[in-house]
Amino acid sequence: MTQSPFADASGTVATIGLFNRPPLAPATFVIFGATGDLAMRKLIPALYNLTKDGLLPDDFDVLCVARTDMDYRRFMERLRNGVARHSRSGIDDDAWSRLGARVDYHRMDYDAKADYEGLRAKLGMKEAHNRHRRFVFYLSTPPTSFPSIIEGLGANGIVTPAHHGDGPPTRVVFEKPFGRDAASAVALNRAAAKWLDEDQLFRMDHYLGKETVQNILIFRFANAIFEPLWNRRYVHHVRITAFEKIGIEGRGRFYEETGIIRDVLQNHLLQILALCAMEPPASFDTERIRDERAKVFGALRPLEVAGDSISLGRYAGYLDEKDVAKDSTTPTFASVKLFIDNWRWAGVPFILSTGKALRDKQTQIDVHFGPVPLCLFKEQEICTKMAPNVLTIRIQPEEGITLRFCAKTPGDRQDVSPVTMDFDFQHRFKDNAQQEAYEKLLLDCLRGNQTLFARQDEVESMWRFVAPVLDGAADGRIPVVDYDKGTEGPEVAL
Amino acid sequence: MTQSPFADASGTVATIGLFNRPPLAPATFVIFGATGDLAMRKLIPALYNLTKDGLLPDDFDVLCVARTDMDYRRFMERLRNGVARHSRSGIDDDAWSRLGARVDYHRMDYDAKADYEGLRAKLGMKEAHNRHRRFVFYLSTPPTSFPSIIEGLGANGIVTPAHHGDGPPTRVVFEKPFGRDAASAVALNRAAAKWLDEDQLFRMDHYLGKETVQNILIFRFANAIFEPLWNRRYVHHVRITAFEKIGIEGRGRFYEETGIIRDVLQNHLLQILALCAMEPPASFDTERIRDERAKVFGALRPLEVAGDSISLGRYAGYLDEKDVAKDSTTPTFASVKLFIDNWRWAGVPFILSTGKALRDKQTQIDVHFGPVPLCLFKEQEICTKMAPNVLTIRIQPEEGITLRFCAKTPGDRQDVSPVTMDFDFQHRFKDNAQQEAYEKLLLDCLRGNQTLFARQDEVESMWRFVAPVLDGAADGRIPVVDYDKGTEGPEVAL
Repeated sequence: MTQSPFADASGTVATIGLFNRPPLAPATFVIFGATGDLAMRKLIPALYNLTKDGLLPDDFDVLCVARTDMDYRRFMERLRNGVARHSRSGIDDDAWSRLGARVDYHRMDYDAKADYEGLRAKLGMKEAHNRHRRFVFYLSTPPTSFPSIIEGLGANGIVTPAHHGDGPPTRVVFEKPFGRDAASAVALNRAAAKWLDEDQLFRMDHYLGKETVQNILIFRFANAIFEPLWNRRYVHHVRITAFEKIGIEGRGRFYEETGIIRDVLQNHLLQILALCAMEPPASFDTERIRDERAKVFGALRPLEVAGDSISLGRYAGYLDEKDVAKDSTTPTFASVKLFIDNWRWAGVPFILSTGKALRDKQTQIDVHFGPVPLCLFKEQEICTKMAPNVLTIRIQPEEGITLRFCAKTPGDRQDVSPVTMDFDFQHRFKDNAQQEAYEKLLLDCLRGNQTLFARQDEVESMWRFVAPVLDGAADGRIPVVDYDKGTEGPEVAL
Repeated sequence: MTQSPFADASGTVATIGLFNRPPLAPATFVIFGATGDLAMRKLIPALYNLTKDGLLPDDFDVLCVARTDMDYRRFMERLRNGVARHSRSGIDDDAWSRLGARVDYHRMDYDAKADYEGLRAKLGMKEAHNRHRRFVFYLSTPPTSFPSIIEGLGANGIVTPAHHGDGPPTRVVFEKPFGRDAASAVALNRAAAKWLDEDQLFRMDHYLGKETVQNILIFRFANAIFEPLWNRRYVHHVRITAFEKIGIEGRGRFYEETGIIRDVLQNHLLQILALCAMEPPASFDTERIRDERAKVFGALRPLEVAGDSISLGRYAGYLDEKDVAKDSTTPTFASVKLFIDNWRWAGVPFILSTGKALRDKQTQIDVHFGPVPLCLFKEQEICTKMAPNVLTIRIQPEEGITLRFCAKTPGDRQDVSPVTMDFDFQHRFKDNAQQEAYEKLLLDCLRGNQTLFARQDEVESMWRFVAPVLDGAADGRIPVVDYDKGTEGPEVAL
């Protein structure tokens, strides 16, 4: 075997960590729910671009699994259209035919035990030429099917605990949401743990695959000057915002099941919070990072339904959307003010806000620093203009970093003005290869790098944390306040 | 009297400080050396723009004094040409005629005592209508004439200590250099102190009037996030650089007398150093700021001629310039590595460099922060790419502030890249009135604001600090190393 490209100077191969790229074994990627929206818009386009960029193993194939009887040629035509429409690099015939030649389609009923026999035969897992093949199962069906599929895969020996088999361990990827509350998440974790070890389980949160989200840790820990300021002594409060301009876009059935809390707050925003707030890990190794994220979740002060730390909203017109109940209590906007009860953050409010049908599409982190200890101007009027420093990490759109500070206004009048220093990610790296979140994360599944996936304890903590919001919304103790489309959310927003 | 525009909310008028603008008394501005280069290129254009911007008192006149017999109309023609060529806003007839109508010309011999009688008569200082008039004397002659002029003004009662007269105290402005070494600076201070109080003496250093230099204090003390980093714990070293692209431009006589140490290092660079390194003052009041600057000079560890903390250079071709001695030891490049022996800066090197005929015109401060305490990447190769943070304050050209930091390089390969956040002063404030350094400083002289002028103790400390450099250059103990024009200076540069 040639030396791993990830060996360090001493020749030792680095432990799996944030950005490692171990060489890849031959692999089969099985997509459950392959006729669904996610496969068309994200998974197949991601696999297409990975093929194009030569990042997949040479021996790689894709088995698309769905409940529907479908003509293979028609199905492939649909996939091709999906790639043409959604791939970040468009489509070229050569790359598409390389991927297309590896894609097969398989119909089965997820609830029919016998069908898993058929799946196993189709995969040829026991055949000699597959002995060193990695099988990765991506569950992109509605989450209600996850338990049956796990049971079917496990009971039929299609997935086995890592220490059982002699080939590369099988892996299972769960599209979010992982459960719909703490109890169902715990149950799903148990169901999975019956057949697989934790290091075979990949709980997706595609936000973690975004370049700017990955950059949070680099920004914090590859620079010496931010960490000394990154604590209760200098930070006044932190805002984490994920606003969307679009509404539910006709997906009433899905949204009534999910709502903004399960869709964004419980996963994306809490994971971004953890990356912002966590202590420096001992290294970028997966478990060291996940340990620190989990510690943040463990230190979250439980939210109270009564009080002023939760605000919910619903855009005007939501109740008239297709498939939405006239008496729906599903919020389309949520903001919470939370505290992390540890030494670093005691007393510093973190305000997490997310909503649909708002004025701008905007996901960002604003770290608001405290005021200067003393205004050296004698003139009160100038002191009031000395806006505190704000560091903004923009995740989308226009990924970048901005620091607001005060400068002298030029000219004879004594004055200060808030100004900004800017860094534009796209502009600076316009010549670099781009990678979408799903590309990064699918590769990480193949590589076995779990850093950007929530661990069992994380996902359960996150559900427990949002439970008061879910409950309070469901039983009406937290009012869901109407807001107009295209605004900044309800007036009660935090 | 109407309430001062500088009264704060409580109605108290603020003490004179960094940016105060008290209302102005009627004034006469007397320029000695009025036929010289500085008057043509800087002083008159500055007065012109102040007139245009309505910043001078309504009752304001200028007496131009020189040794030469000159036709008034020819002289005014010269001034007008100077404004047309050097004013930042060009020239317009209306504004020029408003200023021109107030300018008079007076010939005298600076060494002839009798001529000061004539000057006093010309000024009409004792006339009733001048009782509330402020007289400001600007010495822009060669510095060798300063002692005679001071003596002439004092002995003839043209200038008097502030507590003597009943009108507004007279003021004297000294163009730099103030002395040519510690002894002559002390002597000049004594000569001036014989006739005037310290608060009537304005020692020019036009660098202090530059917007970006004034901004150093605002940047440090109107923002909460820099000061916690601004010390030996986080700062690795600081570079202060003033490079010029031009050579001596035919001014061999002046340059042989002066050299780079007296011309730039002793004043501009040390003053910028003080603003960068000083402790937070208790307020922006003049004396509080000067106290803190003086403390920096007082804490400078004396330079040693032997050792590696001084480097001198001379551009190739300097010895062939007009009026330059063939055996000249005058350096055109100097760099020193200095230490400030106080708690904040102990052990942090400050490297001050300046030179002529270099590759770029560039004046800036680079604060180099230390490395991260621990590189979290396992891969040594990435750790070596993690360039430490640098904060750059650009004074000229392209005034601005840049922060270098590390970001994740997008794409699949694990990597970090040094990138920058930028703030462009000109771009941000393109609609604001601009003010040149001389405008700001002349106004400050009229206003009696000494914040941006070196105090007696400062100027003497600065001379004492550069003495080993001057001596070592003069007696050959520090070699003056040749460098090619258009380079970054001699190879021995620090």
